[in-house]
Amino acid sequence: MNFKPMLANDRVKPHLLKARYGIEKESHRVDLSGNLAKTDHPKTITLKDDHPYIQRDFSETQMELITPVTETVEDLFHSLAAIHDVVYRSLDEGEMLWPLSMPPQLPEKEEEIVIAKLENAENIRYRETLSQTYGRRKQMVSGIHFNFSFGEELVQALFHAQSEIKDVQQFEVEMYLKVSRNYLRYRWFLTYFYGASPQSEQNFFDDHSLHEPVRSIRGSQYGYANSDDVQVSYSSLHNYISDLTSLVQRGLLSEEKEFYGDIRLRGEQHVADFAERGVQYIELRNIDLNPFERYGISDEQVECFHLFLLYLLWKDEGADSDEWVKLGDSDNELVAIEHPLARTQFEGDASEMIDEMEQFVETLNIPVSDRLFVHLREMLTEPSKTLAGKLYQESEQSSQSQVATRIAKENVKKSWEKPYQLTGFTDMELSTQLLMFDAIEQGIQIEILDRHDQFLKLKLKEHVEYVKNGNMTSKDNYVSTLIMENKTVTKKILHQHGFRVPQGEEFQTVEEAKGSYHLFSAKPFVVKPKTTNYGIGISIFKDGAREEDYVQAITLAFKEDHSVLVEEFMAGTEYRFFVLDDQVLAILLRIPANVKGDGKHTIEQLVMDKNRDPLRGRDHRTPLELIQLGEIENLMLKGQGYEMDSIPEKDEIVYLRENSNVSTGGDSIDVTDLIPDDYKKIAVDAVAALGVKICGIDLIIEDTEVPAVDKNAYGIIEANFNPSMYMHIYPYEGKSRRLTMHVLHYLFPELLQK
Amino acid sequence: MNFKPMLANDRVKPHLLKARYGIEKESHRVDLSGNLAKTDHPKTITLKDDHPYIQRDFSETQMELITPVTETVEDLFHSLAAIHDVVYRSLDEGEMLWPLSMPPQLPEKEEEIVIAKLENAENIRYRETLSQTYGRRKQMVSGIHFNFSFGEELVQALFHAQSEIKDVQQFEVEMYLKVSRNYLRYRWFLTYFYGASPQSEQNFFDDHSLHEPVRSIRGSQYGYANSDDVQVSYSSLHNYISDLTSLVQRGLLSEEKEFYGDIRLRGEQHVADFAERGVQYIELRNIDLNPFERYGISDEQVECFHLFLLYLLWKDEGADSDEWVKLGDSDNELVAIEHPLARTQFEGDASEMIDEMEQFVETLNIPVSDRLFVHLREMLTEPSKTLAGKLYQESEQSSQSQVATRIAKENVKKSWEKPYQLTGFTDMELSTQLLMFDAIEQGIQIEILDRHDQFLKLKLKEHVEYVKNGNMTSKDNYVSTLIMENKTVTKKILHQHGFRVPQGEEFQTVEEAKGSYHLFSAKPFVVKPKTTNYGIGISIFKDGAREEDYVQAITLAFKEDHSVLVEEFMAGTEYRFFVLDDQVLAILLRIPANVKGDGKHTIEQLVMDKNRDPLRGRDHRTPLELIQLGEIENLMLKGQGYEMDSIPEKDEIVYLRENSNVSTGGDSIDVTDLIPDDYKKIAVDAVAALGVKICGIDLIIEDTEVPAVDKNAYGIIEANFNPSMYMHIYPYEGKSRRLTMHVLHYLFPELLQK
Repeated sequence: MNFKPMLANDRVKPHLLKARYGIEKESHRVDLSGNLAKTDHPKTITLKDDHPYIQRDFSETQMELITPVTETVEDLFHSLAAIHDVVYRSLDEGEMLWPLSMPPQLPEKEEEIVIAKLENAENIRYRETLSQTYGRRKQMVSGIHFNFSFGEELVQALFHAQSEIKDVQQFEVEMYLKVSRNYLRYRWFLTYFYGASPQSEQNFFDDHSLHEPVRSIRGSQYGYANSDDVQVSYSSLHNYISDLTSLVQRGLLSEEKEFYGDIRLRGEQHVADFAERGVQYIELRNIDLNPFERYGISDEQVECFHLFLLYLLWKDEGADSDEWVKLGDSDNELVAIEHPLARTQFEGDASEMIDEMEQFVETLNIPVSDRLFVHLREMLTEPSKTLAGKLYQESEQSSQSQVATRIAKENVKKSWEKPYQLTGFTDMELSTQLLMFDAIEQGIQIEILDRHDQFLKLKLKEHVEYVKNGNMTSKDNYVSTLIMENKTVTKKILHQHGFRVPQGEEFQTVEEAKGSYHLFSAKPFVVKPKTTNYGIGISIFKDGAREEDYVQAITLAFKEDHSVLVEEFMAGTEYRFFVLDDQVLAILLRIPANVKGDGKHTIEQLVMDKNRDPLRGRDHRTPLELIQLGEIENLMLKGQGYEMDSIPEKDEIVYLRENSNVSTGGDSIDVTDLIPDDYKKIAVDAVAALGVKICGIDLIIEDTEVPAVDKNAYGIIEANFNPSMYMHIYPYEGKSRRLTMHVLHYLFPELLQK
Repeated sequence: MNFKPMLANDRVKPHLLKARYGIEKESHRVDLSGNLAKTDHPKTITLKDDHPYIQRDFSETQMELITPVTETVEDLFHSLAAIHDVVYRSLDEGEMLWPLSMPPQLPEKEEEIVIAKLENAENIRYRETLSQTYGRRKQMVSGIHFNFSFGEELVQALFHAQSEIKDVQQFEVEMYLKVSRNYLRYRWFLTYFYGASPQSEQNFFDDHSLHEPVRSIRGSQYGYANSDDVQVSYSSLHNYISDLTSLVQRGLLSEEKEFYGDIRLRGEQHVADFAERGVQYIELRNIDLNPFERYGISDEQVECFHLFLLYLLWKDEGADSDEWVKLGDSDNELVAIEHPLARTQFEGDASEMIDEMEQFVETLNIPVSDRLFVHLREMLTEPSKTLAGKLYQESEQSSQSQVATRIAKENVKKSWEKPYQLTGFTDMELSTQLLMFDAIEQGIQIEILDRHDQFLKLKLKEHVEYVKNGNMTSKDNYVSTLIMENKTVTKKILHQHGFRVPQGEEFQTVEEAKGSYHLFSAKPFVVKPKTTNYGIGISIFKDGAREEDYVQAITLAFKEDHSVLVEEFMAGTEYRFFVLDDQVLAILLRIPANVKGDGKHTIEQLVMDKNRDPLRGRDHRTPLELIQLGEIENLMLKGQGYEMDSIPEKDEIVYLRENSNVSTGGDSIDVTDLIPDDYKKIAVDAVAALGVKICGIDLIIEDTEVPAVDKNAYGIIEANFNPSMYMHIYPYEGKSRRLTMHVLHYLFPELLQK
């Protein structure tokens, strides 16, 4: 079948790069000296054989990181990065991931390699069979499986650009078969550039094996391969199915998945089902771990694989399919065992292929990153720039093991730099990042329905929950959140239930508010917009106010909302209670933005210094916000007789804000264990009165030692349906409260069932 | 106790007019000839003895309308108006309310007066006792009970302005006792102005009774009064309690409530409890129905009562309380039986009292409406301007019965003028007005938590539900409404559940959208803002578009939202399915704003003519919106080769809009019975897939005769969490679907239990 004219069809072109990707990546846990870990799989990661993101492969030390299927390379790396973050931060202290495909030094006695302690006895039995067939050492080799499918739009467009095959499913099978055959024929091309297993460590080989460094032990006959009598034809779907089925029937393979072909057709549990349901994707299995990339593979590699597969669909193939594949097998073996610093014997062919690929890409107007072809040509003429070449060369300075250990340590360090972030998703709100982190750990599948809108779909087996902003869930009812959105309604309902709330009035116009000045003039009061949050537009008058100041505050508040509240000011300390399902899980004391003097530095310098804390950032993407030095802060300083360049005395605390919101630079201090139970009960009961399940409720308490039942002991300021969970998880001071995990356990109580 | 200095205290002044009000108003159901109705209480009004708004008093024909307690006169009349609307529109056709305190012609045989058919046998027995004691005829007299309490702030301020009484509850009792004694002493003043029962109708009196017209039969010894041996002292709370308790014990009253004093202390079920819990309010019982007011009482009257009560608190009283009251009884009797057109024998006293009241009001800076004192003085010198005088004079032209019948008919007519509105609440959204109407009918207590925000609290016995915008309730979960708010997420979830949704892309910038022009250029597509509603910012291109038009549409949509969707346009007719709790309750076909030509009038004239329909108005306060003639409509006309002054041919339909939203002048046509069940099932299943309980979901269907399972038979456009219920209740054409009642039944399933 000639795909060339189809690929050049104008209706096909817009869809050429549409594809779906998935990566499975194996690595061993090692200690800081690079020795295989003796510990079990990390406890914080849920132990499920079918964990969607983090499993064990052959041995207990061999972690397999699995991305979901993505539609862009960007998303693929986002997922890979996030899963790595979870794995790194879940590892026992002093453990790290071995960055090479070839395992670290193995135990002298093969039996000391511990088979993965899986739930399912069947899965353990399978690994025991493999041990017998291949030996445990061979199973310790790691790599990347790259799953790929052409986009549905592309398949459809190609299908409609021909008339030979009438069934689109059958057409798709032909696409994947051709690509597979050509892949096997030309995979030596990738082995040259990206082969990255030049040497083995101690106790991998018996003495009589390979002694010279190569490009890819793993990609060669010395690597991870079936015995020679396992032969599967790619000449037709029928042959592929019958060969594989027969190998299992004849006992040459214990199961279909034991077939280690460098490319496999995928999509169904059993290959026999391909006949009826077609092939969904292909799996490239011969990719060595790229030691120079934190995630074992670079985006340039993925781009190269993608273009290569598209090019292989286009490229002519030999008439005899099986012969064609066999030619490929021997060429690949030759390349794989070349010395990593030697120029390849296929340099001419490779050069031609690069030219051809480049022309193919240009002709079809496929956008390609600038560096790709330049880099391939560089690597072709300078073998030391290939992965194997580079690793080998670096290892010559010390040893391959020392290089790997150094890289592994750097990777650990990197993943702890901003422990609150989930790499790949740092544009999302911090609470959502934290929830996703925990979901990955718990083996809950995440689908981002709307990234900008923080909208997630979470799935655990058949149980689906949708979550927005990390805490807006199906557990709360709609009208309760509308109640919380409306401060007047919230107050009315709490008041009707017997809770103390600040007395006040609501106004729709400045004029109307003016008319009620006399009601507030002489007592402490607050002016605030009715619905906005984060302390914006709020003015506090602790000793009443002159009429002009009152009007100014009202005007300020009306800039934020069409309704403004004027309320009695309650003296005391404001605490944020986080309530989930009738339980107080965390209490935070928030202190207005402030600096502590040292008798030397100006206020401005002290602010800059405090802002250097990596916990401080902007827009809820860090646990604390940068302290600002804007109009409001300057006014506040002026009120205390300071300017920005004043030098406060040693240990003097200078406040830059009246309001204590973390979002305006305030400090967060966990006081959960310090607040008496009677106040916790007030919080729980008030939240229940609003009919709410997940809520951040703000109480003013004058003295926590005074019982809550006392008159005016407390006042409830407001209830928030989108409380910032992250500020409890990473407080400025005090204990961390992992609220995101509580939310997950609340949504998926089955997680807690043994 | 001297209240004068207290009332003049500066801290008291801001609160002087704070008060709480409530009205109970009785009227008889009559037929169009003014004869007592022979029918039962209207069936649409829930039959509960403790219905909070609409009960029966003595007889089955005697409706008692009860307002909730309100804090302003305005709110009092809003409630009174709304309850009247419900009563009028619930009456059987050909029935109306008798506007006079004196009943219409009664049956010759007293036994033919039907005692109210109440649920509780106790309540029926009580009425039988009354029949025996007073005769059924006397019980047929109707009136207004005016419940009043001074505002809590006022009571507190007065209390703190003295030091004689140490307990605020006791202080409050003294206030109400003084007001009560003075009220009884001076009530003749109100009888003069507002007495309104000059004559009786046939069969009310035995022959030997009153023959001359008077000011108030009801307020006189001929009216609704206990026997002379029922005497209750107001000299102290103790005496009040012991007198009443003893009257019941001695069998002179069957129950405490049989005490017909013109003012009563209220607040507890049993007067004995006043001793411990105090008096909450007072009840004025001697107010005749004002026949000239639709609601039986004017706001000027309420203002007068309020000031009068405040004035009575201030005014000196006699030393011997019981004597003081007795003086008042006889003065009142004298005034009550004066001829309605005669000047009163107390004219001098009344004039002095008006002067004194006016001065009192001025001294204390109490704001009063301009007309009040002018009007009182007018009525004092011209008795024909008093209520009794006016009614008597008008009756002279024909008969009192004919005047009453005419007034009753006008009241009926008025209440049907805009049947979709709930008078008193027309500033609220129509769906909320309709829901409140139904709630009143169903006996569900309504509290408006936030009028501007359409926020209601509904209460049926102990069951509380909060409702916003008529359909946002506790039945829907939060995240499901967030899903509906996000069109991209909605589509993804529906697509994942196997429903057909328009394919498309979401863009964050105009530039990004430009880059995808080629994907849409050649096919039908729609450009729309991601989250806004009502068709604003939507452009439809049925045959693809030139790039400049595409960019213009994108730019337009970005004015409405930060994200814009471009989607395939689905051919077919759009239907709005209203789904509640897994059932399709209504389906609406919406037709874009249009006019039908007559060969004579211009498009502009036809639009003006169509807009005259009282169903059309603005901002969802009417079932249909006015058709606009703005930029978009002109563009649409231009596209069809028309201008505003073109004259379309007879029966030609000219469309003024591409989109069919009712909010942009479209017509609504109920087609619930015409859509096959398989499409209803699609709607129900799709709504369930979103986890939603109350939803308006829009389906495009090309041909409803084609089964829904057919490929591309339908497409789901969007799901709305705030569907306009009113458009189904008052469609332009077709059957009305009372969705608000369904919502109530869904929220309060106990309503349907027998």
